[in-house]
Amino acid sequence: MEPRAVLGTNRYGKSGIRLMKVDRESARHVLHDLTVSVALWGDMEAVHLQGDNTTVLPTDTQKNTVYAFAREHGVGSAEDFAALLAGHFVASQPAVRGAQVDVEVHGWHRLADHSFSRTGPDVRTVSVTVDEDGTRTLSGVRDLVLLSSTGSEFQGFAVDRFTTLAETDDRILCTAVDARWRHLQDQSDWEASYATVLDALTSAFADTHSRSLQETLFAMGERVVATCHGIGEVRLSLPNRHHFLVDLEPFGLDNPGEVFHVADRPYGLIEGTVLAPGVEADRGEW
Amino acid sequence: MEPRAVLGTNRYGKSGIRLMKVDRESARHVLHDLTVSVALWGDMEAVHLQGDNTTVLPTDTQKNTVYAFAREHGVGSAEDFAALLAGHFVASQPAVRGAQVDVEVHGWHRLADHSFSRTGPDVRTVSVTVDEDGTRTLSGVRDLVLLSSTGSEFQGFAVDRFTTLAETDDRILCTAVDARWRHLQDQSDWEASYATVLDALTSAFADTHSRSLQETLFAMGERVVATCHGIGEVRLSLPNRHHFLVDLEPFGLDNPGEVFHVADRPYGLIEGTVLAPGVEADRGEW
Amino acid sequence: MEPRAVLGTNRYGKSGIRLMKVDRESARHVLHDLTVSVALWGDMEAVHLQGDNTTVLPTDTQKNTVYAFAREHGVGSAEDFAALLAGHFVASQPAVRGAQVDVEVHGWHRLADHSFSRTGPDVRTVSVTVDEDGTRTLSGVRDLVLLSSTGSEFQGFAVDRFTTLAETDDRILCTAVDARWRHLQDQSDWEASYATVLDALTSAFADTHSRSLQETLFAMGERVVATCHGIGEVRLSLPNRHHFLVDLEPFGLDNPGEVFHVADRPYGLIEGTVLAPGVEADRGEW
Amino acid sequence: MEPRAVLGTNRYGKSGIRLMKVDRESARHVLHDLTVSVALWGDMEAVHLQGDNTTVLPTDTQKNTVYAFAREHGVGSAEDFAALLAGHFVASQPAVRGAQVDVEVHGWHRLADHSFSRTGPDVRTVSVTVDEDGTRTLSGVRDLVLLSSTGSEFQGFAVDRFTTLAETDDRILCTAVDARWRHLQDQSDWEASYATVLDALTSAFADTHSRSLQETLFAMGERVVATCHGIGEVRLSLPNRHHFLVDLEPFGLDNPGEVFHVADRPYGLIEGTVLAPGVEADRGEW
Repeated sequence: MEPRAVLGTNRYGKSGIRLMKVDRESARHVLHDLTVSVALWGDMEAVHLQGDNTTVLPTDTQKNTVYAFAREHGVGSAEDFAALLAGHFVASQPAVRGAQVDVEVHGWHRLADHSFSRTGPDVRTVSVTVDEDGTRTLSGVRDLVLLSSTGSEFQGFAVDRFTTLAETDDRILCTAVDARWRHLQDQSDWEASYATVLDALTSAFADTHSRSLQETLFAMGERVVATCHGIGEVRLSLPNRHHFLVDLEPFGLDNPGEVFHVADRPYGLIEGTVLAPGVEADRGEW
Repeated sequence: MEPRAVLGTNRYGKSGIRLMKVDRESARHVLHDLTVSVALWGDMEAVHLQGDNTTVLPTDTQKNTVYAFAREHGVGSAEDFAALLAGHFVASQPAVRGAQVDVEVHGWHRLADHSFSRTGPDVRTVSVTVDEDGTRTLSGVRDLVLLSSTGSEFQGFAVDRFTTLAETDDRILCTAVDARWRHLQDQSDWEASYATVLDALTSAFADTHSRSLQETLFAMGERVVATCHGIGEVRLSLPNRHHFLVDLEPFGLDNPGEVFHVADRPYGLIEGTVLAPGVEADRGEW
Repeated sequence: MEPRAVLGTNRYGKSGIRLMKVDRESARHVLHDLTVSVALWGDMEAVHLQGDNTTVLPTDTQKNTVYAFAREHGVGSAEDFAALLAGHFVASQPAVRGAQVDVEVHGWHRLADHSFSRTGPDVRTVSVTVDEDGTRTLSGVRDLVLLSSTGSEFQGFAVDRFTTLAETDDRILCTAVDARWRHLQDQSDWEASYATVLDALTSAFADTHSRSLQETLFAMGERVVATCHGIGEVRLSLPNRHHFLVDLEPFGLDNPGEVFHVADRPYGLIEGTVLAPGVEADRGEW
Repeated sequence: MEPRAVLGTNRYGKSGIRLMKVDRESARHVLHDLTVSVALWGDMEAVHLQGDNTTVLPTDTQKNTVYAFAREHGVGSAEDFAALLAGHFVASQPAVRGAQVDVEVHGWHRLADHSFSRTGPDVRTVSVTVDEDGTRTLSGVRDLVLLSSTGSEFQGFAVDRFTTLAETDDRILCTAVDARWRHLQDQSDWEASYATVLDALTSAFADTHSRSLQETLFAMGERVVATCHGIGEVRLSLPNRHHFLVDLEPFGLDNPGEVFHVADRPYGLIEGTVLAPGVEADRGEW
């Protein structure tokens, strides 16, 4: 009999596992504050079609594994922790063909030996995929909000019937960086690697005289692949957080780039990939 | 000279354009409350590398176009409105090779001829892509929260060292449906098509005795492709909103499936694609 | 010795207790989906100053009590459930002089005997306070979003050096009602009372030709105290969700009240209390 | 004729005014990134009852005033800016008897002369009220997340039928400080005053061996009123962000205070006022 429908791509897992691991080897405690998400895929046809759960490792078990591994192996760098978990699920479950482990690392500033205050709003991210093609390791950052109060222009753009925007040679440029970069191989020091990329992103943003957010995006990506060791590809998603100069003329006042209305919506959204020369873009979904 | 970096895939546009269109042809007003997002791609190398904005249609202009088209052409069905906009950008801008227009449709309940109350939390979605391969039209819904207070079990799953979950033959099943479906051709009546799919999703959820959320997912997708006209593919993302039975024994009370703790995080996440027989999965990113 | 500081007003409790109670007496299940928050106050000086916890009923115990009471007494109307809990804490803990129990009731639409879909965005609220002055019972609603597409004007307002707003005799009026009303005594049927007040609020909104949101606010409050049994006081907080007419003239188009930009921030905020004649405003904080 | 309803307390204004003021006197720009909300009250009976808007200064005008004042007077300290605005509305509008201006100050870290990155998640707050009783100035902070990984216990609490919580002599203590403090007079340097209070709050949190969050709350408030110049009263709202030790015994592992599940809801909420000796609590609502 002809089936009425066919199962396509599928995956499942536990999302939003909140883990705090405290390293207490010395009186000077170290925090690892993570949000972990696991996704698994493989031989899951019978689960969907016949309600046969034989191949399903419950998402509850995935959660338990995250907590147990934190105790058994420690957390260390999030990239290593994610790889350990992803590898475990693929190796230990015959039906699992691939696993993706995503981690958000929440930052804390040390106040004293065992007291801390949360930093932000930027969050460090990690995504490790293990499947038949091997291991793909992405590091990233989101909600890194950067602003230049001058040194940004936007001119010479295409004009049509619906254009009302005036050209400007001096505006505020503000964005919340969401970036991910792909490592060509394991880094010897993931923490140092992250710090280097963050510095590349922020310094390129600050250094670039911007003629468009697109130009800034490329400059940021270029700085990363050109100066950071072992990074083959960067994907950047940059919302343009518009700061509009307020018209103060009705009140008899000028406004030489001083008073701005900060808009929420709509916002521009500039997305782009920057590759190291000779590196091909990854084919999978990030 | 060797470049330090190469531009890969990229796109840009305006997101979060909030449009309210009121049809006032009769005293009985009709609301179209939309959030529209536009993304364009094409010949944008010089923009990124040389700061040459000649090919950039400003995102501000895209926003203006949305408002002007709402007046000039009306909104009608969101699928038609999105297709009109996407087609316009590709046809009118030589550098633009493709456009994607995403729309969220916010629902209102009529109180009187010109008075309304917002419905929800579910939101209707539309995504239309126009490029060299033609037009792809997706309809969808997000935040459609469904719950069954019985008729759901979870047993016979894989067990390993980290398993503590007990099997159950009666639990609450609750999810917030995020679904998108691909039309094989234009529908003659997009509103009727949407209503039919919504009914298929909710009735399949309600009818299915569930042995896992995966089985429910497939049943929902199958119902759509098997009974709704012209739908080739459905992608479902179903968070498992856990309701945990509270242990009341310490207080001398039993708890026969009556009192539950509703958890926020972590949550299960079940994702899957269901295809009509003979239809190939779309290769692009949704 | 002179103290360095003095303890003033204080209270403590558990917030955000998520309870789902399923009534399974018949095959046609009934859901009570609540978020409960408890606050207690009383003789807590030694807790704060000497770290003496003798008088502290842990917030964990408060949470347990909510779940156990749901099984032992059922939920019924949220007003009764909140009163039962608040009374219990005051009666059973010698150090507790007062208790406030706040409840949010999340709505569900029945699909079948044991299947449901969430409604919204409006949420029903209850707040019951028990202390030496007796019991105060507030019912309420939040996020009830209402819109009139005509029948609203705003003219004749004060003008100063900073005024640029034009007068209008036809605008969209939209608000997200946050209302609380105080019962002069227990209602015989809390569910019916709630439905009556909701109908008074929405019908007054829809019926009122509005010359300001303030006028609409008073009309809504007046309708409640004048037509709903046993309500002495209503407090309304009404954000003015601005819908701005888009200027389409640059595109050669008119815009006769049809195309609007929906703004997020800033928004107007109109707050007011309406009392039944002869009723004094409650002195406590809501 | 007897009225059907009576108007009680009321106020209105503009909320969520997003202002970025750039000081460009030198090449080293200075940012003032504020969210400003205005509320006014006074002779507003005719507005509500007769739709007579003569005494209404539109909220749109209030917004314009904020932007114009930023240009005309600069922003400087948020306390001064808020006082200037509140005083203006009361002095210039005969019908306005009182005004409250609330400000949130968003923090930026300097990267270069005109480049910055956002800090957080903590936000500085200011609330200034001007009415017939004079001026009340509150400063504050919200979302200041503090954590101690040891040095916190919770024992000796009241026990009843619903108690299951075990006593502990070592737990994680984590809170998101929401604090407001009242100045007895204007500070000569608002920025220095804020820094001093922040230091008092965080150092008291870090220094205190905590037997309850209530004890920590009092220690924090005491440190402020005892050591910071000119502060009469502090109100603290401290959610208890529970970190639960994960039971790893089923996996053959111990857990000596290392691996925690971070919970979202429910959470404890501890609220209290701390006063300088001899200072009476403010009677108004904060």
